[in-house]
Amino acid sequence: MTKISVVRSVLKANDAVAEVNRKRLEAAGILVLNITSAPGSGKTALLERTIPALAPGLRSAVVVGDLQTTRDAERLGGLAVEVAQINTEGGCHLQATQVADALDTLALKDLDLLFIENVGNMVCPASYDLGEHLRVVLLSVPEGPDKVAKYPTIFQPADVILINKMDLAGLLEFSDEIVRADLARINTRAPLFKVSARTGEGLEAWYDWLRVQHRARFGS
Amino acid sequence: MTKISVVRSVLKANDAVAEVNRKRLEAAGILVLNITSAPGSGKTALLERTIPALAPGLRSAVVVGDLQTTRDAERLGGLAVEVAQINTEGGCHLQATQVADALDTLALKDLDLLFIENVGNMVCPASYDLGEHLRVVLLSVPEGPDKVAKYPTIFQPADVILINKMDLAGLLEFSDEIVRADLARINTRAPLFKVSARTGEGLEAWYDWLRVQHRARFGS
Repeated sequence: MTKISVVRSVLKANDAVAEVNRKRLEAAGILVLNITSAPGSGKTALLERTIPALAPGLRSAVVVGDLQTTRDAERLGGLAVEVAQINTEGGCHLQATQVADALDTLALKDLDLLFIENVGNMVCPASYDLGEHLRVVLLSVPEGPDKVAKYPTIFQPADVILINKMDLAGLLEFSDEIVRADLARINTRAPLFKVSARTGEGLEAWYDWLRVQHRARFGS
Repeated sequence: MTKISVVRSVLKANDAVAEVNRKRLEAAGILVLNITSAPGSGKTALLERTIPALAPGLRSAVVVGDLQTTRDAERLGGLAVEVAQINTEGGCHLQATQVADALDTLALKDLDLLFIENVGNMVCPASYDLGEHLRVVLLSVPEGPDKVAKYPTIFQPADVILINKMDLAGLLEFSDEIVRADLARINTRAPLFKVSARTGEGLEAWYDWLRVQHRARFGS
């Protein structure tokens, strides 16, 4: 009982800070996306393609969460965009206070999009609102098509789902039928894009979706 | 402070149950391996190859942890070995009490090896002793070579590390140099096997290692 009540109060405090983050970012006209996936599904690779493709029409920054290293931030640093690195020191997800601190380091007035690259984890990040407008979940072909059924808590609240590494689909005999059938049970709302961050395949539809989402909230 | 002390007492209780599990399994002459990896790294596929290859000399059973489904247990059921499924109901790792309950369902006297297939997660399972003798960590080629540095808490206590999906190494230009360099900083103890559970490549060394580990503890 004690454990449960402590967890509940932690989540409640997190949600309050998340709401402050969201209002602050909305006031600045910034669309915020919280990106989650298993380790190695290609979150950083996706951002390496997406951010230059949307510029200069939409100007992006990134908040990156990692247990200990700054490797993703270093990779993204090559894009000449602002990157705020958060080390969770062993924690399996980002929380709203960490994002609040990161926002203080970014020039918000020069931004249209903020991508929050969460810790690679298919379970923990689901419960933590960071102040995002939309949740992006990546699934990559080599992980296999059973992941929606096995990790429903992360796929249920997703606003958009990307199947990445589609360039390997033929070789690995991957079919999205199981993914679609499992999603039909828990999330019929989120569009599904099949992409490859390595080859660029299918990314235009994702870029268009991002542009539409920004326009819908903040005009053109 | 409250949160930390609750977490500490949960871990302490878990460790006590793990110790009971370990003694019980040792008395039965069973070597226990706790297998962790990211989702989709190939834990189940590895067991589908390993268990028949070691039989009848070493007789195996499996305890499988999943958030909600029984898909891995169904896959392994085809092997004609005993499989105990644990649903963690959203939990991001197995804990020792769940394994203790699972042991009650297995015919321990007919077993030499028990594989515990943990929830697919590179963070949470690290802190929870289940009563295993050895920790196995899988990393798969498509995840990229930076995972040791990014998830050190799972790789540091590993007793053996397998790089799976080596059949994709050429196509994805994967090199294990970064993996080895990162491991040199945190874990020089664990042998590293490069394998493919899909093609069978490299698995003999892993089988030999398992046979040696069993013999070292329980004789031939």
